[in-house]
Amino acid sequence: MSGRPPSQATQATTVGGFTEQELIGRIQQRLPAPPDWLLVGIGDDAAVVEPERNRVEVLSVDCLVEGVHFDRAFVPPDAIGHRALAVNLSDLAAMGATPRLALVSLALPSTLAIADFDGMAGGLCALAARHRTHIVGGNITRTPGPLTIDITVSGAIKRRRSLTRGGARPGDDLYVSGSIGSAAVGLKILRSPAQAHNPGGPPAAPAVGWNPGVPTAAPAVGWNSQSNLIDRYLRPEPRVRLGTLLARNRAASACIDLSDGLADGLRQIADASGVGVRIDADAVPIDPGARDWFTRAGKDPVFEAMAGGDDYELLFAVRPRLRRRLQALIPIAGVPLTRIGTCTAEPGATVARAVAGAPEMSPIPAGYRHFR
Amino acid sequence: MSGRPPSQATQATTVGGFTEQELIGRIQQRLPAPPDWLLVGIGDDAAVVEPERNRVEVLSVDCLVEGVHFDRAFVPPDAIGHRALAVNLSDLAAMGATPRLALVSLALPSTLAIADFDGMAGGLCALAARHRTHIVGGNITRTPGPLTIDITVSGAIKRRRSLTRGGARPGDDLYVSGSIGSAAVGLKILRSPAQAHNPGGPPAAPAVGWNPGVPTAAPAVGWNSQSNLIDRYLRPEPRVRLGTLLARNRAASACIDLSDGLADGLRQIADASGVGVRIDADAVPIDPGARDWFTRAGKDPVFEAMAGGDDYELLFAVRPRLRRRLQALIPIAGVPLTRIGTCTAEPGATVARAVAGAPEMSPIPAGYRHFR
Repeated sequence: MSGRPPSQATQATTVGGFTEQELIGRIQQRLPAPPDWLLVGIGDDAAVVEPERNRVEVLSVDCLVEGVHFDRAFVPPDAIGHRALAVNLSDLAAMGATPRLALVSLALPSTLAIADFDGMAGGLCALAARHRTHIVGGNITRTPGPLTIDITVSGAIKRRRSLTRGGARPGDDLYVSGSIGSAAVGLKILRSPAQAHNPGGPPAAPAVGWNPGVPTAAPAVGWNSQSNLIDRYLRPEPRVRLGTLLARNRAASACIDLSDGLADGLRQIADASGVGVRIDADAVPIDPGARDWFTRAGKDPVFEAMAGGDDYELLFAVRPRLRRRLQALIPIAGVPLTRIGTCTAEPGATVARAVAGAPEMSPIPAGYRHFR
Repeated sequence: MSGRPPSQATQATTVGGFTEQELIGRIQQRLPAPPDWLLVGIGDDAAVVEPERNRVEVLSVDCLVEGVHFDRAFVPPDAIGHRALAVNLSDLAAMGATPRLALVSLALPSTLAIADFDGMAGGLCALAARHRTHIVGGNITRTPGPLTIDITVSGAIKRRRSLTRGGARPGDDLYVSGSIGSAAVGLKILRSPAQAHNPGGPPAAPAVGWNPGVPTAAPAVGWNSQSNLIDRYLRPEPRVRLGTLLARNRAASACIDLSDGLADGLRQIADASGVGVRIDADAVPIDPGARDWFTRAGKDPVFEAMAGGDDYELLFAVRPRLRRRLQALIPIAGVPLTRIGTCTAEPGATVARAVAGAPEMSPIPAGYRHFR
């Protein structure tokens, strides 16, 4: 159904010049030796897998669409591949599962440069290897539309150990891993026109063209900080180790990943668990560079960091009597953990902050999440 | 990143007016009660599933893209949903696996009518229910591009019973289920302009605008036959029962589904098994309506039916000593089985046909499969 075929020279440098089999081969050559539980791998009608003994299976699918979830103008190919798998591994982490395998379905514009395809495959396979996630199958098709990456992951966990959103009780403490807000600022920096033409190198000085309403001089944070903020957006680190530790040690009563932001995560746990949540604004671990950026831009760092997404940290609830059990995990979790509030019997999600020494309560924005 | 929001009236009738949660709810209400092996279903970060005891797992993913795999001008919504799952169930059938669960990832243009979304969900859920395939999770996102449906399925099968493409040996008989060619003709009929404006009702008389080169009068087959051909394209029936019977009874040595056509399937089995294949042209079970259509169009029915795809029949190899075992399955397979040729020690794929009483051999077209 395509129109006139591109010239030979163009074909050789875009995916349009390759068969599906050849493209799959370029992914396959980046994979480690197949694990012994993989009975039939890539190349047949389906993969055949030996389930892990005494474990239940955790399954999730997520999709990244160019123009909705990333912009090829400023997200380099390896970061696209990395992010596509990271969002899925983050879902497994939120359940406490150990990742095992992935199926990768790519819908590619035939004009995609083969070098970009290879870069994407590289970012994907590198993160997969780091988390011992074997790519057991997939599908490649062309699309007349945007680059679309669909990944299904499967992980393993002991029976009755999986972390859901619905297990929190009034009195439970709420914790968040790492820091938040950085990915949201990283994306804002990348979206500035000065940045768009220079995706690989260090960010250009944001002299002109910042988001409307943001003074150009204000958000000029240092290069180290900018680079870190951008990287948090481009290459999020799924908290797989923390998730499995929380589940294995039965330390958390509920857990969710912050793909849609802290405010959303709090509401999801509150709704699913039938509790209220109360957060201490001063305790929220906002990335210092992001806090600085928001402040210079004249915005409220707490509100912005809570509303911003793409952080891929974990939000989880812990029974007060298990606080010491949790503390024992801190040195091995590989990421700082911060207590940000508690679950309450009264419904509602509120954030408390000290204004002139007295606590002031405000609701966490309800946020109607539109189809997107 | 969307532009000006559509008006209230438009929003109410398109998916753009709904949250992801609401759209998921519209699928959920079409699902039967969750099976007891589903420990955590739709609504958390991931699904949690109890594996089937003493079985290995068979996993596959397939993707349908509007404008590449279907055309909304003549494929009704329920058929889009049906086809998206059918192509996946067909992959499980080719492995001999019993379908168990599916994850459904939808990338939707926000202008998609909610009625079309419901129709699609209806077609998908009806086929899932018929094959006891539970939808355990998924993802819905918007796309600025074409409607894209990605489905991952998982099935179960006993260890060492799965059918691969690579088990055929010289001397094995080759069988194909049902009949072929009908879907290819059904698509040609649907693509004719007379049909495009009348997707739901009976096909209009193909008076004008047939594919270039095809005489307009010739392919005028009867309404019953046309309707059947169109239905074979729109709502293919995955051969799940046959696949599981072949595997359970160890009747087949190799198997593949004919999503890419018989010629491709033969080459895939030949390549994977390291054998040649020799087909008897007269034995190929071409749908009578399709044979008639190709003949009237001045084309070679055998060549066209073998090259055409979308049949979703099974092609499989059987050791000669197991011929009686296979015959015992015929009454319960739910579909006719036809012996079309044999595997040979000499490599190559040939088709033999009687010309003036003497057999004439010709190669099965090698067909460079371009990325698509």
